[in-house]
Amino acid sequence: MCRWLAYTGEPLQPAALILDAKHSVVAMSQNSPLGAETVNGDGFGLGWYPVEGEGTDAAGSRHPFVFRSIEPAWNDANLREISRAILSPLFFTHVRAAAAPPIQQTNCHPFRHEEWLFMHNGAISQFGLIKRELALAVDPSLYPEIQGTTDTEVLFHLALTFGLADDPVAAVGAAIRRVEEVGHAAGVQFPMQGTLAVSDGRTMWAFRYSSQGRSRTLFHSADVPTIRSMYPDAERLSLFGDHAQVVVSEPLNDLPGVFLEVPESTVAVLDPDGYHHRPFLDA
Amino acid sequence: MCRWLAYTGEPLQPAALILDAKHSVVAMSQNSPLGAETVNGDGFGLGWYPVEGEGTDAAGSRHPFVFRSIEPAWNDANLREISRAILSPLFFTHVRAAAAPPIQQTNCHPFRHEEWLFMHNGAISQFGLIKRELALAVDPSLYPEIQGTTDTEVLFHLALTFGLADDPVAAVGAAIRRVEEVGHAAGVQFPMQGTLAVSDGRTMWAFRYSSQGRSRTLFHSADVPTIRSMYPDAERLSLFGDHAQVVVSEPLNDLPGVFLEVPESTVAVLDPDGYHHRPFLDA
Amino acid sequence: MCRWLAYTGEPLQPAALILDAKHSVVAMSQNSPLGAETVNGDGFGLGWYPVEGEGTDAAGSRHPFVFRSIEPAWNDANLREISRAILSPLFFTHVRAAAAPPIQQTNCHPFRHEEWLFMHNGAISQFGLIKRELALAVDPSLYPEIQGTTDTEVLFHLALTFGLADDPVAAVGAAIRRVEEVGHAAGVQFPMQGTLAVSDGRTMWAFRYSSQGRSRTLFHSADVPTIRSMYPDAERLSLFGDHAQVVVSEPLNDLPGVFLEVPESTVAVLDPDGYHHRPFLDA
Amino acid sequence: MCRWLAYTGEPLQPAALILDAKHSVVAMSQNSPLGAETVNGDGFGLGWYPVEGEGTDAAGSRHPFVFRSIEPAWNDANLREISRAILSPLFFTHVRAAAAPPIQQTNCHPFRHEEWLFMHNGAISQFGLIKRELALAVDPSLYPEIQGTTDTEVLFHLALTFGLADDPVAAVGAAIRRVEEVGHAAGVQFPMQGTLAVSDGRTMWAFRYSSQGRSRTLFHSADVPTIRSMYPDAERLSLFGDHAQVVVSEPLNDLPGVFLEVPESTVAVLDPDGYHHRPFLDA
Repeated sequence: MCRWLAYTGEPLQPAALILDAKHSVVAMSQNSPLGAETVNGDGFGLGWYPVEGEGTDAAGSRHPFVFRSIEPAWNDANLREISRAILSPLFFTHVRAAAAPPIQQTNCHPFRHEEWLFMHNGAISQFGLIKRELALAVDPSLYPEIQGTTDTEVLFHLALTFGLADDPVAAVGAAIRRVEEVGHAAGVQFPMQGTLAVSDGRTMWAFRYSSQGRSRTLFHSADVPTIRSMYPDAERLSLFGDHAQVVVSEPLNDLPGVFLEVPESTVAVLDPDGYHHRPFLDA
Repeated sequence: MCRWLAYTGEPLQPAALILDAKHSVVAMSQNSPLGAETVNGDGFGLGWYPVEGEGTDAAGSRHPFVFRSIEPAWNDANLREISRAILSPLFFTHVRAAAAPPIQQTNCHPFRHEEWLFMHNGAISQFGLIKRELALAVDPSLYPEIQGTTDTEVLFHLALTFGLADDPVAAVGAAIRRVEEVGHAAGVQFPMQGTLAVSDGRTMWAFRYSSQGRSRTLFHSADVPTIRSMYPDAERLSLFGDHAQVVVSEPLNDLPGVFLEVPESTVAVLDPDGYHHRPFLDA
Repeated sequence: MCRWLAYTGEPLQPAALILDAKHSVVAMSQNSPLGAETVNGDGFGLGWYPVEGEGTDAAGSRHPFVFRSIEPAWNDANLREISRAILSPLFFTHVRAAAAPPIQQTNCHPFRHEEWLFMHNGAISQFGLIKRELALAVDPSLYPEIQGTTDTEVLFHLALTFGLADDPVAAVGAAIRRVEEVGHAAGVQFPMQGTLAVSDGRTMWAFRYSSQGRSRTLFHSADVPTIRSMYPDAERLSLFGDHAQVVVSEPLNDLPGVFLEVPESTVAVLDPDGYHHRPFLDA
Repeated sequence: MCRWLAYTGEPLQPAALILDAKHSVVAMSQNSPLGAETVNGDGFGLGWYPVEGEGTDAAGSRHPFVFRSIEPAWNDANLREISRAILSPLFFTHVRAAAAPPIQQTNCHPFRHEEWLFMHNGAISQFGLIKRELALAVDPSLYPEIQGTTDTEVLFHLALTFGLADDPVAAVGAAIRRVEEVGHAAGVQFPMQGTLAVSDGRTMWAFRYSSQGRSRTLFHSADVPTIRSMYPDAERLSLFGDHAQVVVSEPLNDLPGVFLEVPESTVAVLDPDGYHHRPFLDA
């Protein structure tokens, strides 16, 4: 239903990808060629981890900040300021296309819980039909923290319930399986659709999965050194460090080889070792 | 936590009470002498039934309209327009003082379900502690309709669950009793606090009740003919018909005898027979 | 830059045209096939005159109401309420595509001055270059009433300055000629572009004009009795009275013969005698 | 009409003063004991310069960022995030109490032009009467940059016109003198009222002046080493460096000696040499 981008690497001004790329996230908010909807104007969000050392607590974890708004991203004056005012080694940004009201900040991605960020493009089919049963499966101590009306926020709290902090891939898998079980029991053929991004501030996991095996698009960037060798004259590359990696709903530019598709039923992992992916919920 | 006003009588521009009274609802939004908080700037709402015949469906019921905003009422340009553009024989208006974010339209009163409107000044104590159990007590078919995070919206859906359409006073009583049971079980001494207004477009019920027996203030207006005889020179009275009745969190003016207190543990009923009240949940 | 619709005829719920038509104004806000931009998500406005007798002042003039918002029209909950809650014999509605921030209510159309409403699709070219000189040409008593940053609001105040109340067609013509003079003096080749709607609550004037002679599209509806004879089975027509007339940026449906193009350099007049048009500023 | 705070010193999270002080700016937004109005809920703004080196351009000047919102500061979720996410050696923050609509971001302080920030508590009396003449006195190249409807934005552009970049104190003085001349010519007895803060990112100037000699309150903080010696047990002081200085509409706490009044008709200057002040427009 939406478009998203997740960045990890050397600290970067989010504006470099949100505002300044050819098919930047703000450009996608008004016109996304590969999107299920072309307009993603029902609010947006930016979640970011601070630079190492500046926001680390005693336990060594980094708490992210979140800026969310119900206005379309394309003309939002504050987004232009904040995405240039900060530097971040890991940030998420999302533009929303809602099926219906309510349009409210608590429905804007990314969602946050302690050091975790979570965002989603896609949907739980016929969510209204199974919302209550899914919400009941959320840990009672987490239930009161659900503030909006989205399927994504419930999915995030299911993943937290199923152990996101201990094993993120297993927990997201268990949450999706629960959605599928409850959905199937209610007669929904293909309950889950979408791409998901999750992070604890150190590692980022990006999932591409749908019950039908026909998921929303997802791409990751090639290694920056590889891109440099392919496009030695691209001045814009000087903005990015050698460890810059992006996962995004659709390519940010039209250069062949720069953005590579993440396969169906896959989880991509971006950590200090770089990008790698493996099968996810592959029946 | 808030201030509210409910009107029934001859069709009236809501502006007469929202904007133009000495202590109008908009004035109370910035300074409410009798309020638990003096500032009620966290959004507002106006819910109104159309004039007889203009909005009646086949079943003879009248569906209300709702205009809600997260901006403070005092400088909202649209409220000034809409409260003069419409005429209504029964309307609710509410200005909100939130304990904390989120400030969102789905948390603004009045709430609506089919032909019913519902609003509240007060709180369910330690709501976070018992929210899940109360939400589970809501009829599963109604559960997905809860869109915001307020205690009031859950209370409304409990009342709907317990038969609001059949016996409003019993249903509100049962909803409050459930809140008290669940709250006491969780160790909350005085779970319920507040004044409530409910209507189906024909009758209005206004409740003043708190577990502690120390409820937020509530007043109703004297009969207009009586007021006219008391204040024969009050030009402003020409705005109002003989059947105009107001229930409100605090008096709209300082004239002795015009606003009378609704007693503790009371339900006031305003219907074609006028105003009358009786004990409510009086132990 | 925008899309607009103006209605005159028997009192009508604006929702019939704003929400419920095939290519309704809300649908155009997200996707306007004939628009200079496909997305018109930078706020919207609804201006309406009350039903005869309900809002007429001593002088017999009718003052319009205005509801404006900076949110996209397509998911705005309040627009859905208000456009069904009112009846109006003459209303304007507009969805905006802004070139840039600021997105603010004071930049949303229609603009109002006393009994006049005014809205615009198009632009004054290089407005920043000539804004000051145009603003100085506004009557000093009107100057402080300009509240936003749009070219349209200045154009409206120029038309008021040049006698809108006495001769609307001449005044709008004089305002546009002034824009062209000042623009040409500043080296702007084609200063004026657009379609305009103006009303005093009794008559509506719609202008299609551009300095280059290549104006934004504008259509008017055929007579309802004619449409009924063409489409005797169209149930939707029962919504409309025999005097219903619409002028709109693009057709509201795909039925041949229902919407007719307003020619270039033309002013259309809709009054109790129905629709007629004549040349406007035709060199 | 408002409350403001300006900080200069060691890089600091604005939250320390905006959110966490006893009488923080957010607390003042809801209840300002010394304010002309107690509620300042008509939007807010935060303007900040980046840390040295991080945002300095080729010419050595630092461009400030601005975050502004029309929501009340007290429950704004984004303000809580941003005021903790950034560090700044010099920031302005402002909460607004508007006399009337429009409430819009372009009316929120601080205002920005290139490296300059500007904010104001007070008013130009009968501004509507003299707005046009003052706007005409603004340099024509600056005129199109005025985006809102406030007296403050016009005053800022007058100061820019009169040489703010060359001699800030003289330029602000000349702007105020122009306001007084134009006001007196229009029959306004006391045209200017207020306190102003201005900065180029290196030095901050704070003015307290009114035509009547009865200006809004203004305070500056004592030297931090002095405060430490006065209150050796105040743990909160560890947040602040030795060069931390605040100028603020009213004291942030009740500790005697910490906040000192800025006298009438005075300009306070805060630069690398610390705080000093001198007479300003003292007849």
